[in-house]
Amino acid sequence: MMADAFEFHGVIPYLPSPVTAKGAIDRPVLAAVCRHLIDAGVHGLTPLGSTGEFAYLSEDQRTAVVETVVEATAGSVPVIAGVAATTIDSATRQAARYRDMGVAGVMATLDAYFPLPEERVEAYFSAIAETVAPLPVVLYTNPSFQRVDLGVPLIERLSNIPNIRYIKDASTNTGRLLTILNRCEGRIGVFAASSHITTAVMLIGGLGWMAGPSCIVPRQSVDLYDLCRARRWDEAMALQRRLWGVNEVFQRLNLAGAVKAGLRLQGFEVGDPLPPQPAVTEAGMDEVRRALVACGALHG
Amino acid sequence: MMADAFEFHGVIPYLPSPVTAKGAIDRPVLAAVCRHLIDAGVHGLTPLGSTGEFAYLSEDQRTAVVETVVEATAGSVPVIAGVAATTIDSATRQAARYRDMGVAGVMATLDAYFPLPEERVEAYFSAIAETVAPLPVVLYTNPSFQRVDLGVPLIERLSNIPNIRYIKDASTNTGRLLTILNRCEGRIGVFAASSHITTAVMLIGGLGWMAGPSCIVPRQSVDLYDLCRARRWDEAMALQRRLWGVNEVFQRLNLAGAVKAGLRLQGFEVGDPLPPQPAVTEAGMDEVRRALVACGALHG
Amino acid sequence: MMADAFEFHGVIPYLPSPVTAKGAIDRPVLAAVCRHLIDAGVHGLTPLGSTGEFAYLSEDQRTAVVETVVEATAGSVPVIAGVAATTIDSATRQAARYRDMGVAGVMATLDAYFPLPEERVEAYFSAIAETVAPLPVVLYTNPSFQRVDLGVPLIERLSNIPNIRYIKDASTNTGRLLTILNRCEGRIGVFAASSHITTAVMLIGGLGWMAGPSCIVPRQSVDLYDLCRARRWDEAMALQRRLWGVNEVFQRLNLAGAVKAGLRLQGFEVGDPLPPQPAVTEAGMDEVRRALVACGALHG
Amino acid sequence: MMADAFEFHGVIPYLPSPVTAKGAIDRPVLAAVCRHLIDAGVHGLTPLGSTGEFAYLSEDQRTAVVETVVEATAGSVPVIAGVAATTIDSATRQAARYRDMGVAGVMATLDAYFPLPEERVEAYFSAIAETVAPLPVVLYTNPSFQRVDLGVPLIERLSNIPNIRYIKDASTNTGRLLTILNRCEGRIGVFAASSHITTAVMLIGGLGWMAGPSCIVPRQSVDLYDLCRARRWDEAMALQRRLWGVNEVFQRLNLAGAVKAGLRLQGFEVGDPLPPQPAVTEAGMDEVRRALVACGALHG
Repeated sequence: MMADAFEFHGVIPYLPSPVTAKGAIDRPVLAAVCRHLIDAGVHGLTPLGSTGEFAYLSEDQRTAVVETVVEATAGSVPVIAGVAATTIDSATRQAARYRDMGVAGVMATLDAYFPLPEERVEAYFSAIAETVAPLPVVLYTNPSFQRVDLGVPLIERLSNIPNIRYIKDASTNTGRLLTILNRCEGRIGVFAASSHITTAVMLIGGLGWMAGPSCIVPRQSVDLYDLCRARRWDEAMALQRRLWGVNEVFQRLNLAGAVKAGLRLQGFEVGDPLPPQPAVTEAGMDEVRRALVACGALHG
Repeated sequence: MMADAFEFHGVIPYLPSPVTAKGAIDRPVLAAVCRHLIDAGVHGLTPLGSTGEFAYLSEDQRTAVVETVVEATAGSVPVIAGVAATTIDSATRQAARYRDMGVAGVMATLDAYFPLPEERVEAYFSAIAETVAPLPVVLYTNPSFQRVDLGVPLIERLSNIPNIRYIKDASTNTGRLLTILNRCEGRIGVFAASSHITTAVMLIGGLGWMAGPSCIVPRQSVDLYDLCRARRWDEAMALQRRLWGVNEVFQRLNLAGAVKAGLRLQGFEVGDPLPPQPAVTEAGMDEVRRALVACGALHG
Repeated sequence: MMADAFEFHGVIPYLPSPVTAKGAIDRPVLAAVCRHLIDAGVHGLTPLGSTGEFAYLSEDQRTAVVETVVEATAGSVPVIAGVAATTIDSATRQAARYRDMGVAGVMATLDAYFPLPEERVEAYFSAIAETVAPLPVVLYTNPSFQRVDLGVPLIERLSNIPNIRYIKDASTNTGRLLTILNRCEGRIGVFAASSHITTAVMLIGGLGWMAGPSCIVPRQSVDLYDLCRARRWDEAMALQRRLWGVNEVFQRLNLAGAVKAGLRLQGFEVGDPLPPQPAVTEAGMDEVRRALVACGALHG
Repeated sequence: MMADAFEFHGVIPYLPSPVTAKGAIDRPVLAAVCRHLIDAGVHGLTPLGSTGEFAYLSEDQRTAVVETVVEATAGSVPVIAGVAATTIDSATRQAARYRDMGVAGVMATLDAYFPLPEERVEAYFSAIAETVAPLPVVLYTNPSFQRVDLGVPLIERLSNIPNIRYIKDASTNTGRLLTILNRCEGRIGVFAASSHITTAVMLIGGLGWMAGPSCIVPRQSVDLYDLCRARRWDEAMALQRRLWGVNEVFQRLNLAGAVKAGLRLQGFEVGDPLPPQPAVTEAGMDEVRRALVACGALHG
């Protein structure tokens, strides 16, 4: 119903960025992960999210990631590429490049070193929206890892820009999502992050989730989404509780480490997070293995 | 179902603490508020929660508050009195006094000036539990206003003390509640705070909510609880969205100010928060009025 | 020079609060500590500072502490009693009581549960100043442990109240002290805390220090003050470096624990911090012992 | 004395990064600023510090900045180039490039998106040190703007790597510098940041300061350094107080904005901070102007 007004919805995994020992993006592995997820029924793909280690990749590496995902997807599901920068100049160049490659939209993140007044934060997101229009923009905010948070009044102002259409709020504050929905309904669709209980976000009117865990439990995530869309909330919640162990592992481990560990257990050689991030330990591998087995995403 | 294992459940408002110009607790007004809430169908009452300004009251004032509430309630609903202190000695004396007055349980808060190692936090809550046993204890944690947070591993350990039976987690992190439920199911029942979407907390298995807003929207809160208990989630959510404006007002204004403003608009002369807390302004009064009218808790 | 305009100056230790097993203030021990410090040459005494566990004492215990210190001091040095509360009512009652007991001034702390707008913070300190006028008030701010910080513009406004004469800023930010001096020179005298390098604070124009460590290194502190007053900065710094180990111990241990451990090593039976604060461990005792021996405040 | 063991010392300004409308580094203006500072007597130059907007520049822009500064300096004073990255790979490539250009040392900053365990922070700085050995490395830490802080135990471990020789600690905590000196004396030399009172840091044994304000008050900074080296502390402090207004302006404005405003007032067309950082306003320009006039760095 609400989702009908919005192009993007459902389970949209944050893809990992596999990098070879020589520093190149491992395109065959990344393409295989994309095909695997599409086969599992996901509704879109997001390269260069936080789990995708965008903050650890060079411009060239980022370009190779998006290129690979667009090619592997071949239009079967929308690709929403992450754009992140400290300057408007860099952000709009990234956005234009991904637009020209054929993405369906971009997810925009503002990085910052010095604090910024709100109207300059607004200028940053407006410039990205203008660059990719009419393609839609997903606002991304994560107060845990980013230096600039987007307050509700600013989100409300940005929601009046026609192609700023979505927000992924990676705070843990589900009430804030309801406030955003109450103020921006119809203009801004809300996606959950892995720190939210996705069933709860669907119940309040969310469109789906954009998050790392769906990479390693894609079929279960699609099942959960289908139960939510059918408004079978109690069944959804029962499945959600089984899946929550995966989210808990993501909260305890490095996000990129958790997704890379899970995919390696499932046969995709995506390697480790980029140093100095810690390599996945045997203990971490075991923790991910147990969580996957417990929800049927890996044979015990 | 889950609630059957637990004595406390439902809508348990945080009561205000009306204080006269001379510094005495205004017992008639407080008793009238209690009777009004019981008539509206609430399932319990909590004197000396955060909204009840426990942090601003002397020992004598606190005693008068609990005494008044126990008398006014006359056993019709359980009274769960707030206990808060920096020392074990003060906390256990408060707890013993309220136990002797006939409360049904206590809600325990740890205040602190210096940081505390986890095992000393554990000692504090254990001592309160021992003092009131077999009466049940509700753990209270609010990382926004308190200097000591209760981590999940500590909550899990405390859940093994037989009469530590409930937690009210006033963080905004609903996912944390699910983690607590997953780890302590059957031993710890979970109550939502005003920063949570109560319907979402009920969906994941919560028992109800202990919070300030229910003081000024008691009938609507009971209706919402009934819909949740009947697992009519979509109807519950529709009501929740109308009520959310009240929670938003509580987040913007001083909590004690918001509840006192609402009750004054509803005819209870509970006065202002204790100075130096700001008195309720006309603008604040209007904001509360609009929120109450919008959800049918006040005539427009 | 600058100090001449101000009544208080020099080394003003924060006193511990010894409490017996029955919960009474141990007056003989506290009086003995006072006399010991006065013999060592300190320039004033502060009961009910943070190190004095004001946040852990009842009203009656606080009263007994101040009474004991005023009597033991018998006018030989100024007594500056700590006043701390969440309400104006409690703060002004404390302040009036201590004034009537004969203190030379009060040190005012604002505790808070909910955030406060700046003008209400101002109201709190103004009310205390009015209560004790013409006795001087020392503003106390400690952003690490308190919920309300005093910003420089507010300090500047408060400095225009005639008997608000001093500030003890327990932030670690020495540059902030210089900013306060630049803006409020002649109206507000600045005292260092144990987190500051006192020699540096004296160099920029400070009056002395109000802090816990001076309780256990009083003679060395007085020597350091004398070197600073004589503007023999290099000699002062050489002594400061030897003393810094004591400050480091205070930063690592619980403040109240460190001062109580040191005094016990020096023969004063002041006991442990109030539970649930941890008792001083053998390891903590050793750490304090080594720091005291290293600067000549204890025989090895 | 202490400084004799160390190659770097004195006033080492953080250079701005002037960027043309087309996004190129304005090499002639940057070279002119370098020559102006060398003429004023500064003891070194730091391109790509925080004030130099390293976080807002592309790899190519960073390379152009260091190249320009090395050429303009022509060996007359040491050039210490900022290296900052989220990955070891990017950091060591930057470091190798600047080493090959002929810098005298590097100042190493760790940026991060996800939290890092301490041993991985250690790996990052060790890798940079190994890359540039035997050139010296300055550790840089700024808890206000960076996601990873360097704790004292880690600094102590890193100080045992032979060419990790200096630290610039941009916390405001001067006592922490004394702790570092006490633990790492002779191995790690300490530089002050603009948030410290430099005279105080010199008094405790610091080597000088690496900071933005010296760019716009270079002669006064050199005078202050000379007074400190001559141990004429009271005269130094008198000059310091006149200069402190400049530091206060840096704390109130965007750092890059303050240094760019000051240089423009002094005739260097360095432009504005990179968008979305705010352009310098007329009010900000006036504030910088007043601060410069007050300390004799600009004609009124």
